[in-house]
Amino acid sequence: MTRTADDPIRVGVLGARGRMGDEVCRAVDCAPDMVLVAKVDDGDKIGEVVDAHAEVVVDFTHPDVVMANLEFCLANGVRCVVGTSGFDTARIDQVRQWLGDEPELGVLIAPNFALGAVLTMRFAQLAARYYPTVEIIELHHNRKADAPSGTAAHTARMIAAARKDAGLGEIPDATTSAADGARGASMDDVRVHSVRLSGLVAHQEVLFGGDGETLTIRHDSLDRCSFMPGVLLGVRKMVQRNGLVVGLENLLDD
Amino acid sequence: MTRTADDPIRVGVLGARGRMGDEVCRAVDCAPDMVLVAKVDDGDKIGEVVDAHAEVVVDFTHPDVVMANLEFCLANGVRCVVGTSGFDTARIDQVRQWLGDEPELGVLIAPNFALGAVLTMRFAQLAARYYPTVEIIELHHNRKADAPSGTAAHTARMIAAARKDAGLGEIPDATTSAADGARGASMDDVRVHSVRLSGLVAHQEVLFGGDGETLTIRHDSLDRCSFMPGVLLGVRKMVQRNGLVVGLENLLDD
Amino acid sequence: MTRTADDPIRVGVLGARGRMGDEVCRAVDCAPDMVLVAKVDDGDKIGEVVDAHAEVVVDFTHPDVVMANLEFCLANGVRCVVGTSGFDTARIDQVRQWLGDEPELGVLIAPNFALGAVLTMRFAQLAARYYPTVEIIELHHNRKADAPSGTAAHTARMIAAARKDAGLGEIPDATTSAADGARGASMDDVRVHSVRLSGLVAHQEVLFGGDGETLTIRHDSLDRCSFMPGVLLGVRKMVQRNGLVVGLENLLDD
Amino acid sequence: MTRTADDPIRVGVLGARGRMGDEVCRAVDCAPDMVLVAKVDDGDKIGEVVDAHAEVVVDFTHPDVVMANLEFCLANGVRCVVGTSGFDTARIDQVRQWLGDEPELGVLIAPNFALGAVLTMRFAQLAARYYPTVEIIELHHNRKADAPSGTAAHTARMIAAARKDAGLGEIPDATTSAADGARGASMDDVRVHSVRLSGLVAHQEVLFGGDGETLTIRHDSLDRCSFMPGVLLGVRKMVQRNGLVVGLENLLDD
Repeated sequence: MTRTADDPIRVGVLGARGRMGDEVCRAVDCAPDMVLVAKVDDGDKIGEVVDAHAEVVVDFTHPDVVMANLEFCLANGVRCVVGTSGFDTARIDQVRQWLGDEPELGVLIAPNFALGAVLTMRFAQLAARYYPTVEIIELHHNRKADAPSGTAAHTARMIAAARKDAGLGEIPDATTSAADGARGASMDDVRVHSVRLSGLVAHQEVLFGGDGETLTIRHDSLDRCSFMPGVLLGVRKMVQRNGLVVGLENLLDD
Repeated sequence: MTRTADDPIRVGVLGARGRMGDEVCRAVDCAPDMVLVAKVDDGDKIGEVVDAHAEVVVDFTHPDVVMANLEFCLANGVRCVVGTSGFDTARIDQVRQWLGDEPELGVLIAPNFALGAVLTMRFAQLAARYYPTVEIIELHHNRKADAPSGTAAHTARMIAAARKDAGLGEIPDATTSAADGARGASMDDVRVHSVRLSGLVAHQEVLFGGDGETLTIRHDSLDRCSFMPGVLLGVRKMVQRNGLVVGLENLLDD
Repeated sequence: MTRTADDPIRVGVLGARGRMGDEVCRAVDCAPDMVLVAKVDDGDKIGEVVDAHAEVVVDFTHPDVVMANLEFCLANGVRCVVGTSGFDTARIDQVRQWLGDEPELGVLIAPNFALGAVLTMRFAQLAARYYPTVEIIELHHNRKADAPSGTAAHTARMIAAARKDAGLGEIPDATTSAADGARGASMDDVRVHSVRLSGLVAHQEVLFGGDGETLTIRHDSLDRCSFMPGVLLGVRKMVQRNGLVVGLENLLDD
Repeated sequence: MTRTADDPIRVGVLGARGRMGDEVCRAVDCAPDMVLVAKVDDGDKIGEVVDAHAEVVVDFTHPDVVMANLEFCLANGVRCVVGTSGFDTARIDQVRQWLGDEPELGVLIAPNFALGAVLTMRFAQLAARYYPTVEIIELHHNRKADAPSGTAAHTARMIAAARKDAGLGEIPDATTSAADGARGASMDDVRVHSVRLSGLVAHQEVLFGGDGETLTIRHDSLDRCSFMPGVLLGVRKMVQRNGLVVGLENLLDD
């Protein structure tokens, strides 16, 4: 079945009754260029997405079932946009193997679909080479169990890699006497500070400092719906792109 | 000699050729209600302040000499505004003893003369009772040797005391898994995060979080001259107030 | 009926099925020191609050009915906490007249119950005398119809009054060439800037500038529930306070 | 004379005794890969830069003399990095004509050399297509005569162009009732707000808003020295690049 640019994209949602899946269903319903053809959750048959001729599925399920979902979809010619967590190198290699050497289908696996979070990472990566010093502050509600956030840790690593590529050495720091914890956690030599307060949702600041100036990139995510534009962008891109893409940032600017 | 409200205040400066003292001299020179009558530094005789009939001296000297300066001034009827660091309980008690039970002179000892820093502490103290959660971020240039800053540590302690007075318990925090240092330093149970970047000067944020809202008080100090309004306020208040005052915040709103 | 400190406060809610009233009902239900005894809305009889022996009613209704509600409650010995808008000087005078010269009941009328908004105003008022320059930025979602927000206008007026009391003149501003609107709206000579963006909720910053330093007070309100602690505080205070109080800020620090 | 990568770049400075020129001289002196060979100002002969075999001149002079400087340098085989203001289309066309169709020399003309300002513009341009709403706040000391700043106006225009390229329409805004000036100045349909406070230096925020999230890019310039890394980058790039470049942002990431 060849698609034309005017055809709405046929989308199925796996994990459709979960918090995120439910938002995805509503977002797809509202998108003028998409049609929601299948909603699948625990107890439903995944085969519904094939029967409904879904072109792309969006998977917000669980680490325990996502691999089986992916294997089934790829075997049945359905493209995948995946927000489920837990993808390590082994899992990513497995998906790449399923896709084969000359992939005719596309899979996107992304840990964070908020455009602002993705743009923050991208900009931080671009700015890193120009500044001798950089630190990250991430701020979340005080019900969060882990610190720092996965996104902050990922951002720190991207910055560290960009500094290394640019030949920058260690970040200069004159601290000789510090109370335990005052200078934050060191992630690949980038300091990350985690603030926890009631009233906050999910926020991140990357602060760069140079001679006589600072540059700050801040992302405030106030609602789960902030992930939806990123999910819809993923669907639009992957309907016509083959192979594996890890990270939404790789689909920007195409 | 009785002063009238119209007489300019006669001010002497100790440490007049130091970085801060030099600024104080210029600030006093520019104040329409003051006249600079003595500038004393290493090698000069402190007696000059008496010969010049100074009513108030401002001391930005060194911990090694400040106590001798104070003893001399009080013995000679000169009031004192002190920005020199190093005042522990023993020194403060000594000054109080010199002043006597019915003090006829006034002394102000203050660790921070920036009005914004003082107001930040005051407001933080007032807000503390209304919010279940609070953290402090202080940001300085990366040549600073210690962390957290003295002002941040002092602010944390004031907040902790205000919470205790209001009957608030420990700050609720769901963190169960944290990278070392991510959650900052605990000063009297208040988390303090110290950011160090080139391009910064001296900045502090106090963040309060409650149900669905946050309140942030931020002070940015970009220039040493930010201390001068606080010094001049100290001079104006202490020319007519007797006894020992520790902390500029106790002179606001009089 | 004399109350003892251990008795839960008996609360009635007028406008109980509205957006705010519904939140109030839930907040009262959860407060260990209160009991919700009456929920009244369109079509119900207001007399229910008397039958249920409510000590305090919370009114989030409509400018068209709030005056009749107040008259009834005061005539029947019920104290009032009012969040309904539309109180001009004439209405406030009327309420004061109903209370009489030696009031035996209390009424609180407040335009904003978020503690952070109230503290922001209070702190802005306290800081105003110490800074030569001040401006306000308020930021709201882009569905808001009016600019600036009522809270920002109110804050500007409080700052202007505090400056006048302190003998400060006009705010110095060297602008000689400005694009139309660039310098914001002048409210009593204080500049107010209104930002409208999707993704925002309700935010306000008051920025003070002096020699070499700035002081910023920022309130972020992310959820309607942020008004509830202020409403409950109003109830707790007004159960034992007689007379008219306008503005929650007058109940802080008691 | 062919240069090798190991040769230090021979730099001349025009306007060497001005505020900015003086900073440039010191920055070049400190750069390990450059040597300062000529300092020229009013009363000196511009021919000195040729006698000293300067490869690149940096021009921070005055709109009245910069065109003569450029003509002389290009006629004598010297490359140019220009921070002097006042370049309109006619002047830019003139420079392009001097360079000719197959330029063998390079000229960089840039209105702002602070890396953070340049990166802010670049990131704003990249983010613009992803967000329905955007506004700019620029904040400067209250001795500034014009509003908005040239950089803010330039940023607004870049954002407007990027939105147009991406097919985005007008920015949605529900404001129906606004105090005069509250909603800022409209620059190509992008709202710009100009804050003026003592204590500030030069700051700019670009705020993007989308579904449930905001992205903020902020640049704080606290010292004139913040322009130097950009000037040195310009020198390093233009020593080996031919043709006209307008805007430092076009030299990043090469």
